[in-house]
Amino acid sequence: MTTTLRMTGKLDPRDSWTAGAGCSIAKSVELLSTRSAFLLMREAFYGATRFEEFVRRAELTDATASTRLHELVEHGLLELEPYQEPGQRTRHRYLLTEKGADLFPVIVSLMQWGNRWLSDTGGPAELLHRGCGATVGTELRCEHGHTVELADLDLAPTP
Amino acid sequence: MTTTLRMTGKLDPRDSWTAGAGCSIAKSVELLSTRSAFLLMREAFYGATRFEEFVRRAELTDATASTRLHELVEHGLLELEPYQEPGQRTRHRYLLTEKGADLFPVIVSLMQWGNRWLSDTGGPAELLHRGCGATVGTELRCEHGHTVELADLDLAPTP
Repeated sequence: MTTTLRMTGKLDPRDSWTAGAGCSIAKSVELLSTRSAFLLMREAFYGATRFEEFVRRAELTDATASTRLHELVEHGLLELEPYQEPGQRTRHRYLLTEKGADLFPVIVSLMQWGNRWLSDTGGPAELLHRGCGATVGTELRCEHGHTVELADLDLAPTP
Repeated sequence: MTTTLRMTGKLDPRDSWTAGAGCSIAKSVELLSTRSAFLLMREAFYGATRFEEFVRRAELTDATASTRLHELVEHGLLELEPYQEPGQRTRHRYLLTEKGADLFPVIVSLMQWGNRWLSDTGGPAELLHRGCGATVGTELRCEHGHTVELADLDLAPTP
């Protein structure tokens, strides 16, 4: 038998509602929406800031990268900061905003899952905790610090 | 200044490589690829098992749901199990596999981020730890149990 969430409050019974357009999962996926958006966010976490870096490292065309970076700025995940190297004209670089940086657990979860399930070798790279050298991933925890599994979860309407 | 990962081993310097097609993030995104795949996985975690449930709750057409569920079975995220109600013909229901269930942190991270950043009201629903009532989300932790932030992370080639 598959383990699933338990529905509570007005979300129980499950047949009485559908998630619809307000669902935060749907909204997040719609905002990210494309493979290229994920790859550009990956590169932002890897330290890319300049347009040429994003194009080269995410292996996108100039046109795709330009459109997508513009959208990520519009959505507030990246912000443009002017910078100038000696003797050069002013240019702009892309920096993660707090909203963008907060997407990191999504990226890590995707990496962790891909390393585990889509590779025979554990994937090409892994995240390590610099302090102790152990592998880093995402864990389900509640705000009180308890480790939580799917079977321990209630889905509840927000207050 | 934006905080980013530190690259180690043959991943340093960053300019000497690109992630390419082997990247687990890219592979995971390509496999999921569509809004409808995410919504169907959401519904699987919410307890849907029957085709009609997936169609209605994810608000998809029969054709889209059918194509996408078939792909999710092909990719091993869901599996088909025959079942029979008294007096009815044998039908099939869709159950999460271990590979599919392991995607849960991705879904939770997307919900958590959407609740925080794409809603004025904290989103329509939240996950609670049944044992203590506290809100549940994903956290970055290393295998030794340390809480980890972006600045504490090394990206390293897998051994």
